[in-house]
Amino acid sequence: MKKLIVVYIFLLGLFALYLFYYKSTSLNETALEKAQEGIRGNMNEKYVMVTFQAGHDYWKRALKGFEDAAGALNVSIEYRGAAQYDVHEQITVLEQVIAKKPDGIAISAIDPDKLTTTINKAIDAGIPVVLFDSGAPSSKAQTFIGTDNYNAGVMGAQEMASLLDNKGQVGIVTLPNQLNHQERVKGFLETMEKDYPGIKVVEVKDGKGSEPISRMAAKELLSKYPHLNGIFATEAIGGIGVGSAVSAVKGKNKVKIVSFDTDKPTLDLIKDGTISATLAQGTWKMGYWSMQFLFHLNHKLTADSKLGNISAPPLPPNVDTGVSVITKKNVGDFYGQ
Amino acid sequence: MKKLIVVYIFLLGLFALYLFYYKSTSLNETALEKAQEGIRGNMNEKYVMVTFQAGHDYWKRALKGFEDAAGALNVSIEYRGAAQYDVHEQITVLEQVIAKKPDGIAISAIDPDKLTTTINKAIDAGIPVVLFDSGAPSSKAQTFIGTDNYNAGVMGAQEMASLLDNKGQVGIVTLPNQLNHQERVKGFLETMEKDYPGIKVVEVKDGKGSEPISRMAAKELLSKYPHLNGIFATEAIGGIGVGSAVSAVKGKNKVKIVSFDTDKPTLDLIKDGTISATLAQGTWKMGYWSMQFLFHLNHKLTADSKLGNISAPPLPPNVDTGVSVITKKNVGDFYGQ
Repeated sequence: MKKLIVVYIFLLGLFALYLFYYKSTSLNETALEKAQEGIRGNMNEKYVMVTFQAGHDYWKRALKGFEDAAGALNVSIEYRGAAQYDVHEQITVLEQVIAKKPDGIAISAIDPDKLTTTINKAIDAGIPVVLFDSGAPSSKAQTFIGTDNYNAGVMGAQEMASLLDNKGQVGIVTLPNQLNHQERVKGFLETMEKDYPGIKVVEVKDGKGSEPISRMAAKELLSKYPHLNGIFATEAIGGIGVGSAVSAVKGKNKVKIVSFDTDKPTLDLIKDGTISATLAQGTWKMGYWSMQFLFHLNHKLTADSKLGNISAPPLPPNVDTGVSVITKKNVGDFYGQ
Repeated sequence: MKKLIVVYIFLLGLFALYLFYYKSTSLNETALEKAQEGIRGNMNEKYVMVTFQAGHDYWKRALKGFEDAAGALNVSIEYRGAAQYDVHEQITVLEQVIAKKPDGIAISAIDPDKLTTTINKAIDAGIPVVLFDSGAPSSKAQTFIGTDNYNAGVMGAQEMASLLDNKGQVGIVTLPNQLNHQERVKGFLETMEKDYPGIKVVEVKDGKGSEPISRMAAKELLSKYPHLNGIFATEAIGGIGVGSAVSAVKGKNKVKIVSFDTDKPTLDLIKDGTISATLAQGTWKMGYWSMQFLFHLNHKLTADSKLGNISAPPLPPNVDTGVSVITKKNVGDFYGQ
């Protein structure tokens, strides 16, 4: 009888062990199988974002996107940048970053031509590189992630047309010598001409990226064209100058202003009605997809590696991160971004 | 004595159970911790790719990219398509797909206007949608992933200029009524005008996407312009027609042909030297990033969810997947893709 109990307990123990073993094995296998799947790196991987004017608010959302992607992918990041608007300083910073052999570098190039040699040095050293916000088309870097400025100009024209009920006179205050601003103006002008025959663009003026000069330019437009209905400013500082000219010379809400970017003074002028709309760039998206693309290059997750020795660029060469229109209605969403 | 053995076995069993329990718990915790990191879904998620002319080779690489991304992300996919080049059939297929409430749909739209209502129906039902290869700009879908045809024309011009040592006469055979082909021609013409003053584009002809008509168009170019040095064909069937005209009327290697896409007959003509270069579209990238973007929409991994109620498009609105140049040197990479 007691022997039977011993055997019974022994068999029961074996069965329990078997159950636990079975359960733990199958659970572990599933869990490990899962852990091996998915797209993830490890915390020893380091990706670096390099900008210029590193303290500027503009980069905050780009860095947030970079961080968010790194968090999702389980990798580490570092932010480096020239403190000033100085190409030599950015070259020095980039040289220092290259020396540390990170797993990828996302760069916004202050000067595409002068940075090309250093960018190519990174690529020749086998470090994945993407350009964001401000590209370097003649470098060996194959991907640019940023605003398509022509499309941004198209959006600006559509917003202006909607503010003016598709009729009236419009002026532009811009930086005529800078490529991104030329493209914004081109998109604006071609859209007005093609889609809004009731709107006439009367003059394009140089605001030199300066608040007082842009204010003066706007004043001249307002006195030269007494029936002026709107002004498009292709950058934020100019938009603030235009805003102060319009507020001073005429009553608010008469001349509609469409501006660019989302610094605090611009948002304040949206809130008080001086500026009717501003175009926000997709800076979070620039940072997020820069990180994703660098990860894909570093882990060889692209067509290159999937399809053998194929002579195709591994990533999309151009990603337009778009602009969104900010007005009084949604300006609250953009404070503190 | 026997009692002692019973107690002994019982205690031994408890200890073994404890060990196994401990091991399985700690392993599972680590594994689950890992499984929570990284970017991954689960196999119950289903994403659908919808095309037209579903059996066509052209979609194979796009589907491979879609599959590769789904594999990396641990989710399921399905491929559906209209068998014919028929907008009503594609609408029916899309309706059937919507009824199954998948986690995302990537569509190449045979006819942007006629499909817009059905695409919007999917979005209104809360299903993430991206357009690839052929977009639907007036629909509510916010992202298009495909070839920037203007840039493709620029690449075609650069390749032609390099083949002709920057001088000579060039003709074009195209589909003048289709937007994507208009853009290819525009990019080609503007690049020649701006960057290659030694090259003159003598005439643009309609090949109607037909091999015999394109052959006839090329014959006319060859007889009208006896000093013709090159022909740019903006689509593959036309390129084959142009190839046969050039082979028949003149000796090979005299008139250089730059064509489009990578179907087998085109690759064969590259191999035998009739066509000097063809432009391969980034179809793998279209499929891969369509899947990634749908996953990001479905899992709310975009700025929208990371930054509160922000009034910005969640994904980049335009992704240019680029083209790569195929010549005799690298044509081997593209067979069997």
